[in-house]
Amino acid sequence: MKKLRKLPNSICINIWKVGRDDPRRVIHAVKVGLALTLVSFLYLLEPLFEGVGQNATWAMITVVVVLEFTAGATLCKGLNRGLGTLCAVSLAFFIEFMAEETGRAFHAVFIGASVFLVGFSSTYLRFFPSIKKNYDYGVVIFLLTFNLITVSSYRVQNVLRMARERLYTIAIGCGICLLMSLLIFPNWSSEHLESSTARKFEVLAKSIEDSVNEYFHGKDQKIGEDDSEDPTYNGYRAVLDSKSSDETLATFASWEPRHTRHCHKYPWQQYVKLGAVLRHFGYTAVALHGCLHSEIKAPKGVRLLFRDPCIRVASEVSKVLVELASSITTHRQFSHEALSDHLHEALRDLNSAIKSHPRLFLGSKNARKVAALKHEKEISSPVTLPSLKTDSSVLLQWKRSRVENQPKETNEQKQLRPTLSKIAITSLEFSEALPFAAFASLLVEIAAKLEVVIEEVEELGRAAYFRESSDRDDIS
Amino acid sequence: MKKLRKLPNSICINIWKVGRDDPRRVIHAVKVGLALTLVSFLYLLEPLFEGVGQNATWAMITVVVVLEFTAGATLCKGLNRGLGTLCAVSLAFFIEFMAEETGRAFHAVFIGASVFLVGFSSTYLRFFPSIKKNYDYGVVIFLLTFNLITVSSYRVQNVLRMARERLYTIAIGCGICLLMSLLIFPNWSSEHLESSTARKFEVLAKSIEDSVNEYFHGKDQKIGEDDSEDPTYNGYRAVLDSKSSDETLATFASWEPRHTRHCHKYPWQQYVKLGAVLRHFGYTAVALHGCLHSEIKAPKGVRLLFRDPCIRVASEVSKVLVELASSITTHRQFSHEALSDHLHEALRDLNSAIKSHPRLFLGSKNARKVAALKHEKEISSPVTLPSLKTDSSVLLQWKRSRVENQPKETNEQKQLRPTLSKIAITSLEFSEALPFAAFASLLVEIAAKLEVVIEEVEELGRAAYFRESSDRDDIS
Repeated sequence: MKKLRKLPNSICINIWKVGRDDPRRVIHAVKVGLALTLVSFLYLLEPLFEGVGQNATWAMITVVVVLEFTAGATLCKGLNRGLGTLCAVSLAFFIEFMAEETGRAFHAVFIGASVFLVGFSSTYLRFFPSIKKNYDYGVVIFLLTFNLITVSSYRVQNVLRMARERLYTIAIGCGICLLMSLLIFPNWSSEHLESSTARKFEVLAKSIEDSVNEYFHGKDQKIGEDDSEDPTYNGYRAVLDSKSSDETLATFASWEPRHTRHCHKYPWQQYVKLGAVLRHFGYTAVALHGCLHSEIKAPKGVRLLFRDPCIRVASEVSKVLVELASSITTHRQFSHEALSDHLHEALRDLNSAIKSHPRLFLGSKNARKVAALKHEKEISSPVTLPSLKTDSSVLLQWKRSRVENQPKETNEQKQLRPTLSKIAITSLEFSEALPFAAFASLLVEIAAKLEVVIEEVEELGRAAYFRESSDRDDIS
Repeated sequence: MKKLRKLPNSICINIWKVGRDDPRRVIHAVKVGLALTLVSFLYLLEPLFEGVGQNATWAMITVVVVLEFTAGATLCKGLNRGLGTLCAVSLAFFIEFMAEETGRAFHAVFIGASVFLVGFSSTYLRFFPSIKKNYDYGVVIFLLTFNLITVSSYRVQNVLRMARERLYTIAIGCGICLLMSLLIFPNWSSEHLESSTARKFEVLAKSIEDSVNEYFHGKDQKIGEDDSEDPTYNGYRAVLDSKSSDETLATFASWEPRHTRHCHKYPWQQYVKLGAVLRHFGYTAVALHGCLHSEIKAPKGVRLLFRDPCIRVASEVSKVLVELASSITTHRQFSHEALSDHLHEALRDLNSAIKSHPRLFLGSKNARKVAALKHEKEISSPVTLPSLKTDSSVLLQWKRSRVENQPKETNEQKQLRPTLSKIAITSLEFSEALPFAAFASLLVEIAAKLEVVIEEVEELGRAAYFRESSDRDDIS
């Protein structure tokens, strides 16, 4: 009952939220409403109706189906619709012309056969990746129009006139759609693509810095904790799951009539490629983030020893990423050397820090003591080391409890889950330096892969004729 | 000219390839052709035409638009179309009823206003994620039909009859589509989803085993080599980029009338969740694969020391993955303990192998010598160690060459790229054990994360009422 009373309230909040998240949605909805009203004038106003007649419905259908959120999508659909209709009309008339001389019964068979053949071949055509990407809608419209005209030609005498009128009204519908999407508060797919690419760099920069800071400063995360609610992990996921949206945006962007000042095709596919490189970079970053949730952890003392150089490397990496993001948004080239100088310095520092503690990688108790002593002043509480168990008795014990508990509820099993991996893994006495070595190695790997990302952005800058940076030094 | 002569040949090959890759495509194309021919009989056969008349076009349109590749998609679209049309007709008549009493001029204004309002609100509605996922097409059809009927009502007298006839023909169209997609060689989205999920496990299993084998046996890969053509990496990518296709399949599968023996909703969303967990698992696996292409490499001697236990862990991991895949395809539950027993054993072996060479993680030359001596018989050629440079002179040298080369061609710069990362990273003298420690740590991490994947498959098994495995021991 209470829930029911709250329902209208939550619906209102939802409605408000959808609009606030992206105000362009409200604008788009208004645009659709306007376009439909405009088109309905074809019916409502006497002089216009006399011109187009019943075929005005086709303009209506066109507006509903073609007017999309972004200009690129509308253009793609509108041109596809136009092209598809034209092709269909031509083919239909060719077939009509061929069948004209024959008898009525044969005519029907001929129409049936051609409907089947065209239906088969255009459906098959839609499975070709290159067709599917850009012309899928056009093929559907082709099939639709062809069938309508061919079949109608059996009953209606003046098909030519009908087809011409339909073409006009579809053109009117497309025209209104293009007007609305290109001239009135246009949403460009290309802008979405650029800003989403730049945002990905920023998200990665923040996530990497956060991960490394959390590794050294943060409280120990509960093992097995579900990290699907972790904001850092969600940041990574936004980058890693971006493939299909990138590709769609790039396809639509390639239909948009912008960036043609230089008389060259703007390299939208380069953005898709950059996205792939960025995802590849992100896999390493997410593996680094995984060290936070790892079941085997480096003891705090070991981590403290290398805190500062590691944090410095991470902050340099994230600085470079932010620079790259601003290079993309401002369409400015950057100087490669200035960008990676500080990073290389930070890497050298990390290297010498690791070299200065070679005994640590022995994993002996001595090394631990040294580490603990060295940072005694920094750490207020004594370093507590996880008590590792050598034998597999714990595992056996866990198994027994599991078998006993099996008929019980799922919830309980869920609580048992973290225990399993913990026991299975921490019962092994891996060298203590192992997890930190993995962390450091991944961090260095990230720095190395960053070079590939930088190169890719440079290539994008060349392909898209980014402006030369006016002052080379102000970037660093 | 030669290219032009080859064109028809390559087109033929392409056509053949699309059909051979998935023969269901050919079947689907035939089905569409048949459905269209069936629907065209409404026009061509005299008695049928007298029944439906010109409205037969709507049946045609319905078939073209609704008949999709999988049964779930067709059902989703067909039901959406039916529902959308019904709602639209009801609302249109309500508005018609309200406007009836008013004068003609006011009627027109009223129609225009309602077209705008309904256009605005239904477009806005499409931005709600829950609507977008399942009812997007229904809203489009609602908008389309509402506008057509409302606007027509201004000119046509007997709108009720027109609407009813249209509804009939749309129902005929939907009926033909459902017949074709559900009864004649149906393609179930649910089957796609299951088989693609199982395939992901198999791909991961193969890729992980390949990666580890390549790490120990393979020739050293060229640094900076583009791994986009690497089959192993492509295998990972198929898993990591599967998000949007998974979600689409799950949405369509939820419309399909299967698996209802148990009177419960089949947990398709659990497959999506499993996909997310599998992607998370894949990030670690891809990071492990990254060790193959890493700029800092463990020397061969170090690698050889731990070859057998590492390969054993990898093969156990991949065995578990294959078992999980078969559990999903055969709808059988598995025994958790039997599954991970061997894996834990392999992990313990790896652990003792690492413990037995603690000096190695010192990174001293002694350790290297020991390693080299120990495996002298296995290695025919002497272990060549990469000559690491301590100072940053190399980096400076590279920079100078880069500045000089800048005006030259892009191609040359591309060849320089690998050099940069190589110099930047290998000029640092990281401990030699560092890269191997990272590799081992990631391998252990994979084993740990596998537990989460196993738990998720178990949960899927519970939710989907998989059969109990008849004999618990035959699985291991």
